Amino acid sequence: MPALLYKADPARAERWRVLFAEHAPDIEWRVWPDIGDPSEIHYLGAWLAPDDLDIVLPNLKVLFALSAGVDQLDLSRIPQTLPVVRLLDPGISHGMCEYATFAVLSLHREMLHYRQQQVEGIWKARPLVPAHKRRVGVMGLGLQAQHILSSLKPFGFQLSGWARSEHRIDGVACYSGEGQLGDFLGQCDILLCVLPLTESTEGILNQKLFEQLPQGAALINMGRGGHLVEADLLAALDSNHLSAAVLDVVQQEPAPADHPFWKHPKIMLTPHVAAMTQPESAFPGLLDNIRRFERGEAMNGQVDRGQGY
Amino acid sequence: MPALLYKADPARAERWRVLFAEHAPDIEWRVWPDIGDPSEIHYLGAWLAPDDLDIVLPNLKVLFALSAGVDQLDLSRIPQTLPVVRLLDPGISHGMCEYATFAVLSLHREMLHYRQQQVEGIWKARPLVPAHKRRVGVMGLGLQAQHILSSLKPFGFQLSGWARSEHRIDGVACYSGEGQLGDFLGQCDILLCVLPLTESTEGILNQKLFEQLPQGAALINMGRGGHLVEADLLAALDSNHLSAAVLDVVQQEPAPADHPFWKHPKIMLTPHVAAMTQPESAFPGLLDNIRRFERGEAMNGQVDRGQGY
Repeated sequence: MPALLYKADPARAERWRVLFAEHAPDIEWRVWPDIGDPSEIHYLGAWLAPDDLDIVLPNLKVLFALSAGVDQLDLSRIPQTLPVVRLLDPGISHGMCEYATFAVLSLHREMLHYRQQQVEGIWKARPLVPAHKRRVGVMGLGLQAQHILSSLKPFGFQLSGWARSEHRIDGVACYSGEGQLGDFLGQCDILLCVLPLTESTEGILNQKLFEQLPQGAALINMGRGGHLVEADLLAALDSNHLSAAVLDVVQQEPAPADHPFWKHPKIMLTPHVAAMTQPESAFPGLLDNIRRFERGEAMNGQVDRGQGY
Repeated sequence: MPALLYKADPARAERWRVLFAEHAPDIEWRVWPDIGDPSEIHYLGAWLAPDDLDIVLPNLKVLFALSAGVDQLDLSRIPQTLPVVRLLDPGISHGMCEYATFAVLSLHREMLHYRQQQVEGIWKARPLVPAHKRRVGVMGLGLQAQHILSSLKPFGFQLSGWARSEHRIDGVACYSGEGQLGDFLGQCDILLCVLPLTESTEGILNQKLFEQLPQGAALINMGRGGHLVEADLLAALDSNHLSAAVLDVVQQEPAPADHPFWKHPKIMLTPHVAAMTQPESAFPGLLDNIRRFERGEAMNGQVDRGQGY
């Protein structure tokens, strides 16, 4: 009987085990580090892969990343012939949409300003900008981004998006490639990053990018901490070029207690909680991919080693 | 030429004037306290009415409240034969939906907890409750409430509502009257108040009501400060029966600097900004009502003196 080795959050292992026991009794369930006979392990479900994967698990057939992004994996150290598959969890998408809507409305309605006024005991209304005059731009136009744009649409914001490749999305002004990045940024009052983290997007949220945003623009980073040059954000906030930022990720997680983002009045920082993989909502897609692999069919979410996502 | 006397926020008077000048040149525009000949004033557009209205404006035909609620008016001191009409501003509805969605998502995703963790420099995720397991109940089922419920629906919350009279709303479990209030409250994880303030709803958010909410429930007050018994909320938060509150209104506005809500870690307080009347979006409805009155037709939003709204 082929086995799946689980190597991720121990707190959620039991919920995964129950799902496999009920819906896939033909796949044996094992939890790292209790590998048992390594030759029986065909599938690895992991957040981080063990070193020397080809030696530790000689019969491994698929690495299922238990996350929507795979930037935490060092793909260069994973055998090149081993398929790596991202987790497509509709529950993640719900979490991302909730967080994105919360963050956009927070910035649209100047809630960081009111948070500071509450600290100071000041009762003073700010002028209200109608949503149809607020321009919200999303960096990244993959499935997550498209769900986020759909969530924002009913509020009547002016929506745009940017990605490396061309997209067409109803009701969204789409920009693509390096050549259109400046035009895109120049019309973003609120910029929301959900890019995958790759060599070409690392550090993309930097001083040069901020300078192309309109005066008073605000930033949301729901991508990875590696997208953001943190010192550049602090400089842009302190010079008042940017007005506020909502950040769910930082370069070093957990953020140390003396990180300057904690105390910054123009920053809302949350501990990487925008979305969390839920075994119950993620399981059907994972099992479907295992069955596809068994039948020799293409799996959903297989990582392109060249693109890195 | 009949005149309309404006007696509300001076900062917005000019925007109203421009709209009347362009779209209703047959109605003269005057701003309090420059009344001119009082006998020419047929319409009063006001937040608060002047005292001795029948003496000050002897030919007044309609009082247009420049607000969605009219609890700030002492209806007993306004001539009983004078029609009082509420402002039905679609812009107000957008603002209410934005604020309500922001507030519900804030409580659903425990953002007051993360706000406090940010103050303390703590990076720690809380378990994520899926929206379909979160029960959101709205008190008040008028037009504003129905728009709010529509805004919340795409997120997948379990929605319910309560009002004095019976309602049927698709996808919303509707409760009505005193007799069903307990059943309604018992299933509200997040309770959102958008009731009108009347004699029967004053102080309705009190200890007895809080006790009927589930342990750990949270409160949003977008109604009026008069709905809430503030000491009872503090007691319910301090005993941990309620987990958090988002409040846009207080008993005494502006809230004094020493109000206990300012510093409370479980309270988010904003300075009555959920929605603000915007002349541009409110004007068409107001002018339509003036034309209706001129033609002897029923106006939209005329206040029922018995109900108080």
